[in-house]
Amino acid sequence: MSGVNVEEILAPLRQLVKEQGDLVRKMKEDNLPEVDVKKAIVELKARKKALEDKELALMPKDNFDRAKMEDTLKRRFFYDQSFSIYGGVSGLYDFGPTGCAMKSNFINEWRKHFVIEEGMLEVDCSILTPEVVFKASGHVERFSDYMVKDQKTGECFRADHLLKAHLEKVMSEKGCTDDKKNECLGVISQLDNFDKDALTEMFKTYNVVSPTTNNPLSDPMEFNLMFGTNIGPGSGLQGYLRPETAQGIFVNFKRLLEFNQGRLPFAAAQVGQAFRNEISPRSGLIRVREFTMCEIEHFIDPSNKDHPNFESVAGLSLTLFPVDEQMSGKSSVTTTIGEAIDKGIIKSKVLGYFIGRTYLFLTKVGVDPAKLRFRQHMQNEMAHYACDCWDAECRVSYGWVECVGCADRSCYDLCCHMKFSKVPLVAEKNLPEPIIKDVVEVVPQKSVMGKAFKKDAKSIMSLLATYTEEDTLKIENAFKDNGEYSVEADGKTFVLKPDMVQIKKYQKKVHVEEITPGVIEPSFGVGRIMYAILEHNFKVREGDAQRTYFSLPPVIAPFKCSVLPLSNNPEFLPLVKSLWLGWRRTCMFAC
Amino acid sequence: MSGVNVEEILAPLRQLVKEQGDLVRKMKEDNLPEVDVKKAIVELKARKKALEDKELALMPKDNFDRAKMEDTLKRRFFYDQSFSIYGGVSGLYDFGPTGCAMKSNFINEWRKHFVIEEGMLEVDCSILTPEVVFKASGHVERFSDYMVKDQKTGECFRADHLLKAHLEKVMSEKGCTDDKKNECLGVISQLDNFDKDALTEMFKTYNVVSPTTNNPLSDPMEFNLMFGTNIGPGSGLQGYLRPETAQGIFVNFKRLLEFNQGRLPFAAAQVGQAFRNEISPRSGLIRVREFTMCEIEHFIDPSNKDHPNFESVAGLSLTLFPVDEQMSGKSSVTTTIGEAIDKGIIKSKVLGYFIGRTYLFLTKVGVDPAKLRFRQHMQNEMAHYACDCWDAECRVSYGWVECVGCADRSCYDLCCHMKFSKVPLVAEKNLPEPIIKDVVEVVPQKSVMGKAFKKDAKSIMSLLATYTEEDTLKIENAFKDNGEYSVEADGKTFVLKPDMVQIKKYQKKVHVEEITPGVIEPSFGVGRIMYAILEHNFKVREGDAQRTYFSLPPVIAPFKCSVLPLSNNPEFLPLVKSLWLGWRRTCMFAC
Repeated sequence: MSGVNVEEILAPLRQLVKEQGDLVRKMKEDNLPEVDVKKAIVELKARKKALEDKELALMPKDNFDRAKMEDTLKRRFFYDQSFSIYGGVSGLYDFGPTGCAMKSNFINEWRKHFVIEEGMLEVDCSILTPEVVFKASGHVERFSDYMVKDQKTGECFRADHLLKAHLEKVMSEKGCTDDKKNECLGVISQLDNFDKDALTEMFKTYNVVSPTTNNPLSDPMEFNLMFGTNIGPGSGLQGYLRPETAQGIFVNFKRLLEFNQGRLPFAAAQVGQAFRNEISPRSGLIRVREFTMCEIEHFIDPSNKDHPNFESVAGLSLTLFPVDEQMSGKSSVTTTIGEAIDKGIIKSKVLGYFIGRTYLFLTKVGVDPAKLRFRQHMQNEMAHYACDCWDAECRVSYGWVECVGCADRSCYDLCCHMKFSKVPLVAEKNLPEPIIKDVVEVVPQKSVMGKAFKKDAKSIMSLLATYTEEDTLKIENAFKDNGEYSVEADGKTFVLKPDMVQIKKYQKKVHVEEITPGVIEPSFGVGRIMYAILEHNFKVREGDAQRTYFSLPPVIAPFKCSVLPLSNNPEFLPLVKSLWLGWRRTCMFAC
Repeated sequence: MSGVNVEEILAPLRQLVKEQGDLVRKMKEDNLPEVDVKKAIVELKARKKALEDKELALMPKDNFDRAKMEDTLKRRFFYDQSFSIYGGVSGLYDFGPTGCAMKSNFINEWRKHFVIEEGMLEVDCSILTPEVVFKASGHVERFSDYMVKDQKTGECFRADHLLKAHLEKVMSEKGCTDDKKNECLGVISQLDNFDKDALTEMFKTYNVVSPTTNNPLSDPMEFNLMFGTNIGPGSGLQGYLRPETAQGIFVNFKRLLEFNQGRLPFAAAQVGQAFRNEISPRSGLIRVREFTMCEIEHFIDPSNKDHPNFESVAGLSLTLFPVDEQMSGKSSVTTTIGEAIDKGIIKSKVLGYFIGRTYLFLTKVGVDPAKLRFRQHMQNEMAHYACDCWDAECRVSYGWVECVGCADRSCYDLCCHMKFSKVPLVAEKNLPEPIIKDVVEVVPQKSVMGKAFKKDAKSIMSLLATYTEEDTLKIENAFKDNGEYSVEADGKTFVLKPDMVQIKKYQKKVHVEEITPGVIEPSFGVGRIMYAILEHNFKVREGDAQRTYFSLPPVIAPFKCSVLPLSNNPEFLPLVKSLWLGWRRTCMFAC
């Protein structure tokens, strides 16, 4: 199918996206109520998805045969389902010798490309994590999917998947009218955007029941995707398996800053396992319950978003899919990173730098540049704290799959942990000129407090040590107005009298100011990228459809070379063995 | 203190061990009741421990200062307690940039020394594991420690640790007689050997209460050391975090054997995290709740325990501490591996080979050979399935610490999983000559069974497919005697009649026999070995006690070299940078 025809087919779909995109922009400009804007965005996303599905369907077929590749992966034991002699557990995979060699080559190359070349501080933190950390990060409250439960058997289903399957069944039934079909398609295309109420309504409207028993279902409920466990004996400490490695870096920020002699910017990196208790894992390595991540947290002075090596990637040309193009129903664009910065498409050089380095890495390890794009998050799909976020997406037989996220997370994470831990997670920045600062400080009178509060005095004093100038002025005012001030520590209330603390006011010459660093986070899903590499490099020998192979770049190929005697003559064996040993002992990490 | 004096002091202790060792041997020869032998062994161990404690106490002091080293480790951020901004969680550690670089160098070198040089099949299996796997392996039933609970607050304590602390307090009290002291010491030295009843008795005898509240305690109870979690939504599937990586290899045995084209011997290896919910973690990296292991399972034909490369380690001289020496109160011996095999001290060449390779690896990465010994397990401390087991122990400031276990586990693990999964985990072995074999087989008559048992027929037939010749003969006899045979499947009982199955007897010419491979398992605790390496290489600069450093072998040193300008002249900076980048890009994996 020629390019012209394709564009003719896509034109009306593009137009629909553009109209809705313009509408959303206008509604925002007019400050219309948020709920209305949200509805319009749902519709915008649905139209974008319809356009993208059509685009993918019209792409020239590259004769890729997933079943054939999966058969090769199994036969060569790249990876396979875990525990299959016991029936297997969905969402868990074991890497065999071939996949494991490829994976460790991948990780070594990632470490070389990022940790070593960029001088990052690599850490290796605990997977087991106490609850307080994920309360601070927001995972306990928000890291969940909706599920419904069979009211008799207790069987659980992921709500959006079940609703989709149900609607597809409705559409396939005899006598389903075109109107009904369109209605169902409309609902399916908006599935990702439904909140709890919308989902509940849909389950009622379409009278969805359990597909296995026909029993009635519970209303959709939130299911937290973290695996819980108890740390220590008895009822223990509530803990979770980390769903990302990033938090381990944030809680070590102080030590890492010290290690870097107090200087910004610096980056920390981590390679390790993370866990998500998916309700219904699917799509092979794409959505699993246990996976390896490579994450970087690059800490910066938020007032300086340049990068010293930006020029080294400025000329790099790659495919971007910016928000504007997405909202106007246009295609992705090919541009250099330098241009994207100049035009304000990518919002900072430091983020542009990491997008460029990510592109270089992915294409080095075997991702096909023609099947790689960086898609910018729209305002409403960005985590609420992020300023700008780009996903490296790889096109595979499942569609466009997010493989790397590059986000400017601002100072969100450090602020959260500072709030929950009461430990200042800040850096000192030299001022161009020293300044004179008014200081207001609360100084506890230890002996008076000790007498009054006994063993609680320590907690109260620790609390006062965290008081800001504003807090301190509140104490002063309370003393003026009521002659006392109430404070809560360890869940109890204590009354401070004016003789217990001194409110000190003085001027100080300061040479530094404290800042909370911003964070740029490139986050790599190893399994997903490996899957994309495998798809992009799968080949069938010409003229012999049964002979399949992978043409992987040497840098991640599981085998670098083989020593194979052409004859079974036993005289050759010692020679083969010595060649083989010689190679093994000297070349393992070469290439 | 000269060698002679030391031996004079140790002589009576050695004699005590020897007497008890001889007694134990004699009791075994005389087939005395097991309970009496066990008691004698408890006493033997106590005497061995007294001897070892004295030996350690008399060793020349090497001026090692643990507090000083720990301070250096913290300052240089080798590792530190996890989540310490939230107060920390005991038994969890984060590796900082220095420790993390050392750890990844360690793992790369291990991979090179074992996986690459020995041509092992490396795998990377799931940490999350369904319960059935650990039921098969015995961990659900037996992987536990004893704990006691404060009956009012629910606080938990590890029973043996608490009893020890209590007795030490008793001994330190004024007015504690020498008799009482000796009695307490006797109990302490036997702590490791107490079972539940013995512990319960001791807690009563010494009236032990909670050390924090003085409340009464529960009786000692078993506490399983695996972290539990639910896999999947709802009540989910009961799962555990693996307490060792080995089971992931065993459940993949069939795939790995196929990958190796059905041939024995072959080895599989795995590097990964494992988890143990210690009741009271202690001793820094020595006893933690999350740790990295490197494990090897070398599968062999149990009738051939040679190793083709044995000669390459036969001449290696190392320190062994065989059972005989331990039972006779003697010191460890220095010997070559070849001699140890000839004398029957190490029971097989294949085990000797891995002991040698382990020695070479440990000394290459920085373990001091003078502080390394291989100690043989006594019959009663060996897991019940092992035939021979040697621990590589490193002497550190905590005493002799087990860092690597080298065990001949026979076919125990594969047999367990075969029994639970009903999947044959066997290898085929070519017979020197084909043999004629009588075969007795039960062949279900599908249509008759289908009619009689409906949907249960399939389970019954699957069960019959696992029947051995012996089982089949049982059916035949039951038919003869009672005209029917009862069989249990899926928890229900079914009655087979003679028309439902055919008992086939015939002769078959077979060229291969099925064998269940034996397993040699070298298992490395990465954290413990790293800790030993750090202790063995910690130095204080002469004449300046504040300047401490580690003299690590280059192969695992975190930094291979530094580029440091001697002057702040900005003209030097580009030069430094280009040197530094050039070095980084080319040399990272060198040495």
